[in-house]
Amino acid sequence: MTLYEIKHEIAHLASAELQTPDPEGTLWFFKELLGMYETHRSGASVYLRGYEDPYLWSLKVTEGPVAKMVHAGMRVSSPEALERRAAVLAESGLPGGWMDGEFGYGHTYWFHTPDGHEMRLHWEVEHYHAHPTMQSKILTRPSKKPLQGIPVKRIDHLNLLAADVTPVKETFEQHLGMQTRERLVDGPVEHGAWLSSNLLAHELAIMRDGHGARGRMHHIAFFYGVQQHNFDAAEMFRDYNVMIEAGPDRHGLTQGAFLYVFEPGGHRVELFGDPGILEREPDFDTKTWTMEDIDTVTAIGGAGLPRETYFTYGTPPV
Amino acid sequence: MTLYEIKHEIAHLASAELQTPDPEGTLWFFKELLGMYETHRSGASVYLRGYEDPYLWSLKVTEGPVAKMVHAGMRVSSPEALERRAAVLAESGLPGGWMDGEFGYGHTYWFHTPDGHEMRLHWEVEHYHAHPTMQSKILTRPSKKPLQGIPVKRIDHLNLLAADVTPVKETFEQHLGMQTRERLVDGPVEHGAWLSSNLLAHELAIMRDGHGARGRMHHIAFFYGVQQHNFDAAEMFRDYNVMIEAGPDRHGLTQGAFLYVFEPGGHRVELFGDPGILEREPDFDTKTWTMEDIDTVTAIGGAGLPRETYFTYGTPPV
Amino acid sequence: MTLYEIKHEIAHLASAELQTPDPEGTLWFFKELLGMYETHRSGASVYLRGYEDPYLWSLKVTEGPVAKMVHAGMRVSSPEALERRAAVLAESGLPGGWMDGEFGYGHTYWFHTPDGHEMRLHWEVEHYHAHPTMQSKILTRPSKKPLQGIPVKRIDHLNLLAADVTPVKETFEQHLGMQTRERLVDGPVEHGAWLSSNLLAHELAIMRDGHGARGRMHHIAFFYGVQQHNFDAAEMFRDYNVMIEAGPDRHGLTQGAFLYVFEPGGHRVELFGDPGILEREPDFDTKTWTMEDIDTVTAIGGAGLPRETYFTYGTPPV
Amino acid sequence: MTLYEIKHEIAHLASAELQTPDPEGTLWFFKELLGMYETHRSGASVYLRGYEDPYLWSLKVTEGPVAKMVHAGMRVSSPEALERRAAVLAESGLPGGWMDGEFGYGHTYWFHTPDGHEMRLHWEVEHYHAHPTMQSKILTRPSKKPLQGIPVKRIDHLNLLAADVTPVKETFEQHLGMQTRERLVDGPVEHGAWLSSNLLAHELAIMRDGHGARGRMHHIAFFYGVQQHNFDAAEMFRDYNVMIEAGPDRHGLTQGAFLYVFEPGGHRVELFGDPGILEREPDFDTKTWTMEDIDTVTAIGGAGLPRETYFTYGTPPV
Repeated sequence: MTLYEIKHEIAHLASAELQTPDPEGTLWFFKELLGMYETHRSGASVYLRGYEDPYLWSLKVTEGPVAKMVHAGMRVSSPEALERRAAVLAESGLPGGWMDGEFGYGHTYWFHTPDGHEMRLHWEVEHYHAHPTMQSKILTRPSKKPLQGIPVKRIDHLNLLAADVTPVKETFEQHLGMQTRERLVDGPVEHGAWLSSNLLAHELAIMRDGHGARGRMHHIAFFYGVQQHNFDAAEMFRDYNVMIEAGPDRHGLTQGAFLYVFEPGGHRVELFGDPGILEREPDFDTKTWTMEDIDTVTAIGGAGLPRETYFTYGTPPV
Repeated sequence: MTLYEIKHEIAHLASAELQTPDPEGTLWFFKELLGMYETHRSGASVYLRGYEDPYLWSLKVTEGPVAKMVHAGMRVSSPEALERRAAVLAESGLPGGWMDGEFGYGHTYWFHTPDGHEMRLHWEVEHYHAHPTMQSKILTRPSKKPLQGIPVKRIDHLNLLAADVTPVKETFEQHLGMQTRERLVDGPVEHGAWLSSNLLAHELAIMRDGHGARGRMHHIAFFYGVQQHNFDAAEMFRDYNVMIEAGPDRHGLTQGAFLYVFEPGGHRVELFGDPGILEREPDFDTKTWTMEDIDTVTAIGGAGLPRETYFTYGTPPV
Repeated sequence: MTLYEIKHEIAHLASAELQTPDPEGTLWFFKELLGMYETHRSGASVYLRGYEDPYLWSLKVTEGPVAKMVHAGMRVSSPEALERRAAVLAESGLPGGWMDGEFGYGHTYWFHTPDGHEMRLHWEVEHYHAHPTMQSKILTRPSKKPLQGIPVKRIDHLNLLAADVTPVKETFEQHLGMQTRERLVDGPVEHGAWLSSNLLAHELAIMRDGHGARGRMHHIAFFYGVQQHNFDAAEMFRDYNVMIEAGPDRHGLTQGAFLYVFEPGGHRVELFGDPGILEREPDFDTKTWTMEDIDTVTAIGGAGLPRETYFTYGTPPV
Repeated sequence: MTLYEIKHEIAHLASAELQTPDPEGTLWFFKELLGMYETHRSGASVYLRGYEDPYLWSLKVTEGPVAKMVHAGMRVSSPEALERRAAVLAESGLPGGWMDGEFGYGHTYWFHTPDGHEMRLHWEVEHYHAHPTMQSKILTRPSKKPLQGIPVKRIDHLNLLAADVTPVKETFEQHLGMQTRERLVDGPVEHGAWLSSNLLAHELAIMRDGHGARGRMHHIAFFYGVQQHNFDAAEMFRDYNVMIEAGPDRHGLTQGAFLYVFEPGGHRVELFGDPGILEREPDFDTKTWTMEDIDTVTAIGGAGLPRETYFTYGTPPV
């Protein structure tokens, strides 16, 4: 199978598990402010979903000593795609293997990126079916929009930090068929890569870790779909003492509408107001940005991104 | 190749040609009000593109005796996909064949739907490259957003009328691998089908022709990506004497934000404020709506759709 | 004191009391869906305020046999203005007099319009002071925006039905100094008048009662200030089985963004997305609309207003 | 006449004259990007209005050696109010006097603030009457919204710099009856005052000049009324090389939605997306912010304001 043929093997980002030293604060943030539904509890973990997430959960919050992303899950396009990707990854020499037993997800292949992030590939999933009182009249919406906070629809994307961007990017390109839609370079050094396997401008980004650390997360993003909701959310975060790092504004890179905050457990969370560019072209050329355009890369408006935190802070802390 | 495997063969809707008895009015509508760029003129035809359309044109306006859609073009995912689709269509018995010579598009396979609409499949396209003064700082935007009217970004989708919906739908499903995401049925009769081959809720819809006529178009849609722009556009259309049929509001079916107007040549044009649901699931189940939910199907707000025109008017007139 | 000099005697609309046969449903609507705070209960009444209403309550919900507006309260500009307006009204022959004892409002002059609506004029009011945990960081906001439903900021305006519009309008003009900003006429008959004493396009409207009944209410409006919230609200109302009459759309008259629904008790409630035109000119000429422009009067988009209900339904039912 | 009684003597801010060393650039900015209509030219001056400005012009652009505000005009509430304000100002000892002959405005009283800004008071104005082809269907809109750029509706407010804020503020309070709605203080020093004589949170602000200079302008603001248009404008400014200083975001002080840019002549211009809080209370208490809340004062989101320019740059340059 050629690289060209594998480009649709990954369907979409499905889930992530965040470890938090402040589970009460983290759950308050995602449930009370972002209106996520709790669907399950087990041991030190609570499982949440946005009102348009299709499966049993998109976010697993687990109590633990430090803030960190434990793993992220992507759904493949078919059972055969899972077999093929597992075989390729097994040959690659990256740590990995089969696992079972995660709530809501079936037989799964896990692997580590060259930087040490744990990723999981699923075909078998359990779809969420709402109780009749919680069903929406809108058939493509798995549950009513809740009346709590400023509710997010679903998980949107993940931004990982890496000591070296390029090999992580190449893992997703070569073994999983994801395409790099946009890049940020500083001379010969790749500072960031934004990858997708569908119309979204990105579901996965890899940015250079300012501390040179390995395996960290920059942020996880949830989707509003309406830019105004980023403004509503900023007002909410301000009044409820959630620290806003940057935004609301719109990135030049991806054209996505952003708002960055820190949840009480310490993770940077992005609210994605609208998806920005939807790339439909099958032969889309990767766009490469350079540091001289960093202002447009980060924000179309005047917001900019605070360099003292944005390019260095990640979880776990170094 | 199984049906399953062909689901990514069609990349996206690329273009349409509209014949108009009032070319001056039609061009005023698309250029002055919707801010489309003219890229070429030849004979009775003028070629236009929105500021994020990637190719030389997405709309060809051709003078002619009546308003009608002459053809629509879809881009396939690879040269091999074009060969495969052409072979399958040729075997199907539907009228079709190879053609060349359309401005901006290369070797093309054309065919007729069972209802008589002319569709074209392209791999070879000419990308639009803006003059330096018209380049945007945003690298994923092929040209600056113009300062004229309320500019649309790009072509969004096409809604065809058919005397019988089902065979047209099945042509796109079985020969082209498109998926029916949502349907509207009245007992055993299929009143509408909304199809896509990517994350968009639909790029092609087929609705039952209230007059039982064949080969007509219901509407063509252009994309804003921002719901507020539908409101801005409504204000503009009101003041510039463009007849508004319905909206701004949001459909329950597709969740897309709509505004319907009639351009001076007689075609119904939809402005698509935001894309609504983006379907990421590889095993998405088709949602079937029934007539008892027609209010939610058509509009989440109270707008409704004017039944005296919406379910009967199409082009060409009967 | 001349008419000219009295134009600032009325400061703004402050409150209204609605009687409802379904207090549970009505309170669910205003508290759970519109996020109003309950500030007091007494007997058959519950007192509510939006998060930017400055006083103890703007809406009093009282259980009773039929849906009807019991009274509405306007705040005057000074203690002297209250004395002057009371004197003028007492001389006018309209039923009226002084009263005390309403929760949150002090010495009050009440009167009846020529059509029989009870209006009250207040100077003395009790301002709302939030508990420290409910104080907003925004100093002009008397309390945090709640995390419940799609919260309204404050009461916006009141639309009364009258068997004869003109004498009611003239009462507010001549005795209270309010200005008629816009009118709708059908030949010699005044079908509606929109009045204000500040920059808002209207705080009080009087429309012709399609049934010729007296003393009824057409609707009460609450303010979002953000047009998008009308869309969010429509989605909420649709999913929570609140009947939407019309909108979201924008009126040509007042330019206000509207959404009309019926609360479970039977009252028509308008959500006012943004205020529309703010009239700053001291010598603003009343604008008079005629029936031939009724489409623009009611909606800039295509929504229109459903004539079978909009021009006949009011509370109490006839 | 007591202070209390004079509070409605000033109706609203009507106009400003900006001198520019780059008239071509300044006119391109206001006409091509902000869609203002040119209504007159005379000598070195060009007169512009937004599509909802009621008079012949709200902005006069005059060629001259440096960027500076030449004067600003406010409209009074009546002819008598003009006589009264002129008498009070004449007694105050501030430089001032009567003048005639400004295009579109009649007999006028001018005066200087204690810091040296020239202000003018008008009663007589010439209303703009659109040619029939440019009339809007919306009767409260004096002309159609243009199809050019992202058009502003009207002038919104003016922000002046002063070596000493307090005496300038007191001039507008005591002689003109304007109310200080919000203040920013640093210990005993007043850093800013925001004044209004109507429901708008401010039509005039005075901020401390970081250079201690006298008579300078911080910015002039034009009104969109729709927050989304600030985003649209940011995108436009970015692509057309207009320097964005800060925003789009929302101030905590006034709650107004802001975007700050520098027009080619050097003036800071604010686009006001929506008016923020509308103050209806007749006995509204001035809100006083302190430096510890400066983040909320300037921006509800994370934008902040760039201290290196925002608190020092003004026109004319020092």
